[in-house]
Amino acid sequence: MRIAVCPGSFDPVTNGHLDIIARASKMFDKVIVAVLHNSSKNSMFTIEERVEILKNNCADLENVEIDSFSGLLIDFMELKNAQVIIKGLRAVSDFEYEMQMALMNRKLNQNIETVFMMTSSKYSYLSSSIVKEVARLGGCIHGLVPDSVEEELIKRFNIGG
Amino acid sequence: MRIAVCPGSFDPVTNGHLDIIARASKMFDKVIVAVLHNSSKNSMFTIEERVEILKNNCADLENVEIDSFSGLLIDFMELKNAQVIIKGLRAVSDFEYEMQMALMNRKLNQNIETVFMMTSSKYSYLSSSIVKEVARLGGCIHGLVPDSVEEELIKRFNIGG
Amino acid sequence: MRIAVCPGSFDPVTNGHLDIIARASKMFDKVIVAVLHNSSKNSMFTIEERVEILKNNCADLENVEIDSFSGLLIDFMELKNAQVIIKGLRAVSDFEYEMQMALMNRKLNQNIETVFMMTSSKYSYLSSSIVKEVARLGGCIHGLVPDSVEEELIKRFNIGG
Amino acid sequence: MRIAVCPGSFDPVTNGHLDIIARASKMFDKVIVAVLHNSSKNSMFTIEERVEILKNNCADLENVEIDSFSGLLIDFMELKNAQVIIKGLRAVSDFEYEMQMALMNRKLNQNIETVFMMTSSKYSYLSSSIVKEVARLGGCIHGLVPDSVEEELIKRFNIGG
Amino acid sequence: MRIAVCPGSFDPVTNGHLDIIARASKMFDKVIVAVLHNSSKNSMFTIEERVEILKNNCADLENVEIDSFSGLLIDFMELKNAQVIIKGLRAVSDFEYEMQMALMNRKLNQNIETVFMMTSSKYSYLSSSIVKEVARLGGCIHGLVPDSVEEELIKRFNIGG
Amino acid sequence: MRIAVCPGSFDPVTNGHLDIIARASKMFDKVIVAVLHNSSKNSMFTIEERVEILKNNCADLENVEIDSFSGLLIDFMELKNAQVIIKGLRAVSDFEYEMQMALMNRKLNQNIETVFMMTSSKYSYLSSSIVKEVARLGGCIHGLVPDSVEEELIKRFNIGG
Repeated sequence: MRIAVCPGSFDPVTNGHLDIIARASKMFDKVIVAVLHNSSKNSMFTIEERVEILKNNCADLENVEIDSFSGLLIDFMELKNAQVIIKGLRAVSDFEYEMQMALMNRKLNQNIETVFMMTSSKYSYLSSSIVKEVARLGGCIHGLVPDSVEEELIKRFNIGG
Repeated sequence: MRIAVCPGSFDPVTNGHLDIIARASKMFDKVIVAVLHNSSKNSMFTIEERVEILKNNCADLENVEIDSFSGLLIDFMELKNAQVIIKGLRAVSDFEYEMQMALMNRKLNQNIETVFMMTSSKYSYLSSSIVKEVARLGGCIHGLVPDSVEEELIKRFNIGG
Repeated sequence: MRIAVCPGSFDPVTNGHLDIIARASKMFDKVIVAVLHNSSKNSMFTIEERVEILKNNCADLENVEIDSFSGLLIDFMELKNAQVIIKGLRAVSDFEYEMQMALMNRKLNQNIETVFMMTSSKYSYLSSSIVKEVARLGGCIHGLVPDSVEEELIKRFNIGG
Repeated sequence: MRIAVCPGSFDPVTNGHLDIIARASKMFDKVIVAVLHNSSKNSMFTIEERVEILKNNCADLENVEIDSFSGLLIDFMELKNAQVIIKGLRAVSDFEYEMQMALMNRKLNQNIETVFMMTSSKYSYLSSSIVKEVARLGGCIHGLVPDSVEEELIKRFNIGG
Repeated sequence: MRIAVCPGSFDPVTNGHLDIIARASKMFDKVIVAVLHNSSKNSMFTIEERVEILKNNCADLENVEIDSFSGLLIDFMELKNAQVIIKGLRAVSDFEYEMQMALMNRKLNQNIETVFMMTSSKYSYLSSSIVKEVARLGGCIHGLVPDSVEEELIKRFNIGG
Repeated sequence: MRIAVCPGSFDPVTNGHLDIIARASKMFDKVIVAVLHNSSKNSMFTIEERVEILKNNCADLENVEIDSFSGLLIDFMELKNAQVIIKGLRAVSDFEYEMQMALMNRKLNQNIETVFMMTSSKYSYLSSSIVKEVARLGGCIHGLVPDSVEEELIKRFNIGG
């Protein structure tokens, strides 16, 4: 069984992420979406919320599993018997950073492979942080994130605003 | 009447910015230089100072207006009946970030267009932050910023130093 | 009156080109689409055909004029009293080449300005040569070029094939 | 069964190609190396030679099959029931070109996915054309291509030289 | 006598840095490794520790001297009668930033030249920060930094962990 | 004695090349400008003309020698006891190609080092081919090439035109 891991902060998940996850699920026997528990970085959504949102939005993808991890990605992968890291690429700057990470992960474990998928061109400008920024300033984010995330972002920024 | 907006932090304005503004003013009926009021980011000059410096240095450009904004740039543009965003590009990394912003702004409002102008090659290494860094360390910034800004930067770093 | 020139080979025009032309026509008083007559390069469509196709597909844009030129672009611009060159950018590699050309054109004439517009993300993979290549191999190019160009390409490659 | 295709000219195959093929073979049930029969481009090795060299050098990879194709890659893939295109990336310039091709292929067939793998850093400077150029000038290409290819290149350039 | 300076934070030095220093030492009469004393940035190793580590690891390079500096690099260089800045490049993003710095340094002092050397491809993914991150998460950093640095990083993260 | 080689086609030499050569001559004991004799590529100036032009324009640089070579650059360097290759970089696309060449040259000879220098920003758009193209179309190339080259280019294109 070939297991791939799709790691990220997903704070929150965007429709660009969901597009990559759905497409990846067709290529591997199992895809584990691995939410990074990064204690040092302020996240808007808790790790539990991020996992929950992903579970709700990937419910119809039978071979997709949602999990969280802290520590080294390759340690998580060994635990899960996963062999492949999936990363979405939007732009050249993504590419260079991800290439550096991929080379480091291969150094750490020769059997781990990173594969890159292109973000769909209609989501090429999309990132979790730009969505939060637009929502914070009151802009319309419809179609960029799942509806429940849209509602939640509007609610949080209105209360805070 | 075609109105273009030239947004930025201008903390402080550099001669590279002024070059872009002057060249843009020849292409559109009116150019509004829009100083971003970003409360979360520490700026060296207050929003009032930044507007004032720009006013002094654009005084001879008749169709250039200085203003400030907070919130979404496209909301400011709708208020001003502006249709075009002008951005200066220096390098590939500028290009990718600005392309992402431009695509997002077009998603938010289909009628807003972003156009890119090349920074003059003699200013290709120039940014507000590198000017502040060089001034802080006592380096000569003559010719990189307007004279009054040069004096002010020297004064501030001497007092603080 | 501000006149912009949109130069290119347009061999043949794609929907990506037409999108840039339409958007540019809103920003300037007149936009001249200038088809390059490049004698040393083999073109699939003659200069007359390329001009004709553009005329047909820009007929509803009142301030757009189709013309052809050979020689230096800036000489053509001076003849037409045009001040602005418009170029569409898709990718980083476009950007570097166009930046070099823009700097050279500014060296040749200080009053000529080049502005860059982003290709719509749905056309980011599109170029005249890739369209011809796909058509040559029998692939579907519907939606990538105007319908009349699609028919013409299919006809030419079938006869030749 | 998930079938991936690894397309290319392989004129001749390099150790960088073989590294990608071997790594890809671990991720998919079958990997078809598809040698492009490009009649318009001068190749050093015939299509039969290129297929033969690949067969000899992939003999120990049980799920790797060597084939050739002309025409559209996606037509070949449909014929072979393949769903995934594999491309090796060395540098940013590779990335942009491959991204454009991947977007075009997705436009032509929504069910075809392109995944990118990183070339091993020790082969990051390697391409078929640089190998031929070095061999032509009498430089040592040991370790860059399979031994049989090395011998063949030396033989051909000596006779021609 | 031609003196080159190799500036950096070296927090801590990696084997990629040491490779550049050794190669640079063959090209110039003297190479001064200049450790930046950056008071505003949190460093893991003190300036004294960083200088000490470099001294231990460059002991066999006779024309290499270790020093530290604060303030403008070009002021330090004038003090040392150095004419050349050496920077290692790994990727395109390095290149753009370093190009900007090099142009600024030339503006500050016309006689100062910056030369770029390629990082060895086997260290192309290596940086001080990625090494610290991997060590913090318990990953193996053997071969990426000098042995003494490896031990020290493991010790520090174990105590803190 | 440290000897550097500055290789290129120099068809013809531009002021950007001369700037790099002059700056390089301050860093090394001897700089050999090595004109590539590339039989397969059509050059506008013969190898003898290109060497002659360079000799005339570098006459006041005492430690600069003009020579030509065919074959592998590293073979020429071994013959000349040269250790360093100097390349000027203008843009990211230059960088990637040159990095690939530098890695290949290091593979061929471990003792050969490539160093990159930045093209002066005022020549960032300059190349031999763009100069020839502009001259061919009758544009002004004054200040881009040595005066004698300017005259020669005008003469050749007028006769041919």
